[in-house]
Amino acid sequence: MVRFFYEENRETFDRIHNHGTWAVAAVGMISYVMGDTDMVERTLYGSDKSGKGGFIRQIDQLFSPDGYFEEGPYYQRYSLQPFLTFAQVIRNNEPQRKIFEYKDGVLLKAVTTLLQLTENNGQFFHLNDALDKTWHSNELVWGVDIAYSLTGDKQLLSIAREQNRVIISEEGFRVAKDIESAQPFIHQTMIVRDGPDGNKGGIGILRSGTGKDEVAVVLKYTSHGMGHGHFDKLSFTYYDNSREILQDYGAARFLNIEPKNGGHYLKENDTFCKHTIGHNTLVVDEKSHFDYDMKLSSGYAPEFYAFRNTEKVKMVSSVDKNAVPGVTMHRTLFLIDDPVFSRPVVVDLFKVISPEKHQYDLPFYYLGQLIHTTYPYEAFTTQRSLLGESNGYQHLWVEAKGKPETHLAATTFLNGNRFYTLSSLADSHTEVYLNRIGGTDPDFNLRNDPSVMLRQPYASSHTFVNVVEAHGDYDPRAEYTIEPYSSVSSIQLLIDTEEYLVVQVEVKNGKILEICLSLNNPDEKQNHAVSGYQWRGVSSIQVIN
Amino acid sequence: MVRFFYEENRETFDRIHNHGTWAVAAVGMISYVMGDTDMVERTLYGSDKSGKGGFIRQIDQLFSPDGYFEEGPYYQRYSLQPFLTFAQVIRNNEPQRKIFEYKDGVLLKAVTTLLQLTENNGQFFHLNDALDKTWHSNELVWGVDIAYSLTGDKQLLSIAREQNRVIISEEGFRVAKDIESAQPFIHQTMIVRDGPDGNKGGIGILRSGTGKDEVAVVLKYTSHGMGHGHFDKLSFTYYDNSREILQDYGAARFLNIEPKNGGHYLKENDTFCKHTIGHNTLVVDEKSHFDYDMKLSSGYAPEFYAFRNTEKVKMVSSVDKNAVPGVTMHRTLFLIDDPVFSRPVVVDLFKVISPEKHQYDLPFYYLGQLIHTTYPYEAFTTQRSLLGESNGYQHLWVEAKGKPETHLAATTFLNGNRFYTLSSLADSHTEVYLNRIGGTDPDFNLRNDPSVMLRQPYASSHTFVNVVEAHGDYDPRAEYTIEPYSSVSSIQLLIDTEEYLVVQVEVKNGKILEICLSLNNPDEKQNHAVSGYQWRGVSSIQVIN
Repeated sequence: MVRFFYEENRETFDRIHNHGTWAVAAVGMISYVMGDTDMVERTLYGSDKSGKGGFIRQIDQLFSPDGYFEEGPYYQRYSLQPFLTFAQVIRNNEPQRKIFEYKDGVLLKAVTTLLQLTENNGQFFHLNDALDKTWHSNELVWGVDIAYSLTGDKQLLSIAREQNRVIISEEGFRVAKDIESAQPFIHQTMIVRDGPDGNKGGIGILRSGTGKDEVAVVLKYTSHGMGHGHFDKLSFTYYDNSREILQDYGAARFLNIEPKNGGHYLKENDTFCKHTIGHNTLVVDEKSHFDYDMKLSSGYAPEFYAFRNTEKVKMVSSVDKNAVPGVTMHRTLFLIDDPVFSRPVVVDLFKVISPEKHQYDLPFYYLGQLIHTTYPYEAFTTQRSLLGESNGYQHLWVEAKGKPETHLAATTFLNGNRFYTLSSLADSHTEVYLNRIGGTDPDFNLRNDPSVMLRQPYASSHTFVNVVEAHGDYDPRAEYTIEPYSSVSSIQLLIDTEEYLVVQVEVKNGKILEICLSLNNPDEKQNHAVSGYQWRGVSSIQVIN
Repeated sequence: MVRFFYEENRETFDRIHNHGTWAVAAVGMISYVMGDTDMVERTLYGSDKSGKGGFIRQIDQLFSPDGYFEEGPYYQRYSLQPFLTFAQVIRNNEPQRKIFEYKDGVLLKAVTTLLQLTENNGQFFHLNDALDKTWHSNELVWGVDIAYSLTGDKQLLSIAREQNRVIISEEGFRVAKDIESAQPFIHQTMIVRDGPDGNKGGIGILRSGTGKDEVAVVLKYTSHGMGHGHFDKLSFTYYDNSREILQDYGAARFLNIEPKNGGHYLKENDTFCKHTIGHNTLVVDEKSHFDYDMKLSSGYAPEFYAFRNTEKVKMVSSVDKNAVPGVTMHRTLFLIDDPVFSRPVVVDLFKVISPEKHQYDLPFYYLGQLIHTTYPYEAFTTQRSLLGESNGYQHLWVEAKGKPETHLAATTFLNGNRFYTLSSLADSHTEVYLNRIGGTDPDFNLRNDPSVMLRQPYASSHTFVNVVEAHGDYDPRAEYTIEPYSSVSSIQLLIDTEEYLVVQVEVKNGKILEICLSLNNPDEKQNHAVSGYQWRGVSSIQVIN
């Protein structure tokens, strides 16, 4: 087996990739058993012992200081097993290497960070190529048990309780023995940095509420993520009521089902899922970010701009200047808890700066049934055609095309027992497309999910303002419907410069939510003043009665 | 209140309809309290005390001897409350009327029969206008508690346990007190007769397995069912794995949601849901049964033909000669438990007899994702149009059109963790349409569910043979896929006359399931012989090695 991994597949053995980790873990474990200390060195520092390959370099390169694995949570789960198992073997044989302390304890952080990259029910965020996996997966049983044995973190025990099994080892035994002292696992509002040194973008997670009413808002501004990465800079997903509401489509499904492309990823994974239009982010001129060039995309990551975590307001903001030549995209997401809304509300300010005119498309892939729009639309009820011809557009049917008559274009849908309204700022050029995934799909591979797409057909700089609101309750069994309409009555963009945004969201009870944002000074101590608006720090949120 | 119900709304008071039951129950309860025995008589026998209206006549006319309520299970649930509550009031005040013994105890049968008209999880079959209701609904809490107080049937206690509440009364108290002695509720294979005298058709329910693996096959051959009835003679639905697999669409949704048509039934309830093409049954020449004439339809019901309930084979068979002029439809459903299949298999023999040539469409509304077909098809991947122009056809998009190259046209889909294959007998004229609900739907009212539709474009007498098979297991979390392919390798219709059908279903292990059916002699003691096939009784099922 060592010959196979070390000699016949040397390239994989030395590769900085999870495939390499599986190889060095296997060879390393054999070598410890056989007492081959030279070969152990090669698994740790590469076949030439230079440190350019091997386990240590893999830890250095593949994990950020925050414990984020470059390929994203779905593959982080997968890779965790060889990393943790081999680390545990190293610790058992050579405790003096302090492998779990290496890089500020990053291997253990990888476990707790991965647990944070989940919905409240444990489903991993569907970033990059991702399918249906949760923290109940086998790799996380290993991860949680090993991490608990080293940290004694009692929050891990409540994950172990949900997993309802342990590994057959001293670590597993300890978890089983201590299970009664479990403490609730708390999902955090946090920033998870990407890149070996933590400076290649990251993920912002905003949370509010607990249990079934936990809300999560995710901003993805990571680096590309190698072969499983998607072209989705500044993409946004939203979870509520134990469901994915504004979805990341993830990978094209049916993995391991032989009648579907032999059980491999489907071709639609490349033609739709990885493309920008498959995500809740901006597409310029119907081209994907970095023109769908993975090599090019791998050279850049968006910049972190700001983060805020207070009781009432959570915020994350990031800027990308490379995904589209000549276009700066600056997206800021707020999650706001205020009694003017019955539930936490999301405000999405997407500033696009460009000297040239472009077509801008901003889709929101909602999951649910369309209930109501405030704008008229032409529905294509007897003939239907595609949104475009390439870059994923060929996979979208246009079901209807709307033209807002006011500055507010609101779309209400129902998901489970709850209503959601996407309230969008519109101008006289704005077009609203109601699309559905499933065009150019002769094998019925794609899920036929809907989206609302805002299009500015020909604009230079432009600011998209969107408010996402959960409201009401529908119970077909008890036969009641509460609050099926949105409470937003208008959205106004009062200041829109390259330095500042000031937005007012008027609510039906007459109150106004006012948001002020500084776009190019993240200093929280800076005072700002523009046209009579004054605030301190990056952002200011207030309610005006 | 009495003046309002009795004088101002006399027509409703005297009506043989659930609205009349609410009226007489209200007036009757008031009259008992006020000691107005004359008015009590009027609630029981109609405003003129002739017996042409009133509660007794409502019981006579609206319930079959088997306790089936003419409008179907969803409305049976709704109507049960005034029937049972008023009956309980009558019993409390005038026990000598023996109201619960009336018509062989039909009011109590109505409770137990309704509990049988459910999936294993308690959802009522979606026959006629039906939405999302289960035996957990309030009316059934009343029904179960009152029925238990009168019958002491301990199976009812396990329903009460699932309901997890009781009514605030002596009856509810008794249920609460006895709850520990609950016995499991058993879903039966049974025939439920429709019509005041039990001779207006009915419902056949075939079951196999228990709990999560309970399978149910339902053949609907009832009378029309008044204003909430559908034009769906001999429609078939199939449940497995705690899910509806071949669905009855039921009523158009969003009831009580004000932004959707003011909370009323949607117009698509009339233009799609009630039409024949919305159901898993035969449409002749693109017209609905009885040409969508409710008055006409209300005059007829299909005939019961045969029923069988043995350990290995369950069967129900019914004939309709009125829904389509000049066309006899005879459908026979088998649910067969035999080790040649890994799970119980459904065989559907649909014999159509007609001297004239017609177009025959037989759809199957499957719920799930298409995995595989054995026939080539042309998929409409860039432009899409409708199946037809009226009678519900205008609500169906044609996604693909297939032309089977052999006598077997199999369609495999995935629902939850399980695969299903519909294996259809095809001839050189057979066309297979893969349709999706949602055309001509400007308000996005319809669910976008798929169907497989078999079309014989120009045939006189014709026999459809279909086999529905559940198989395999898919677990994306544990990453395994078992048995994703059907085990049926061929279907042969060896005898096809107006008297007999002989079908052989060949399974991949080389075994053959042979089914012989007599079409016009339901005598179970009759011997039959045709072309070397011999059997006794209506049907014979055997496995040939």
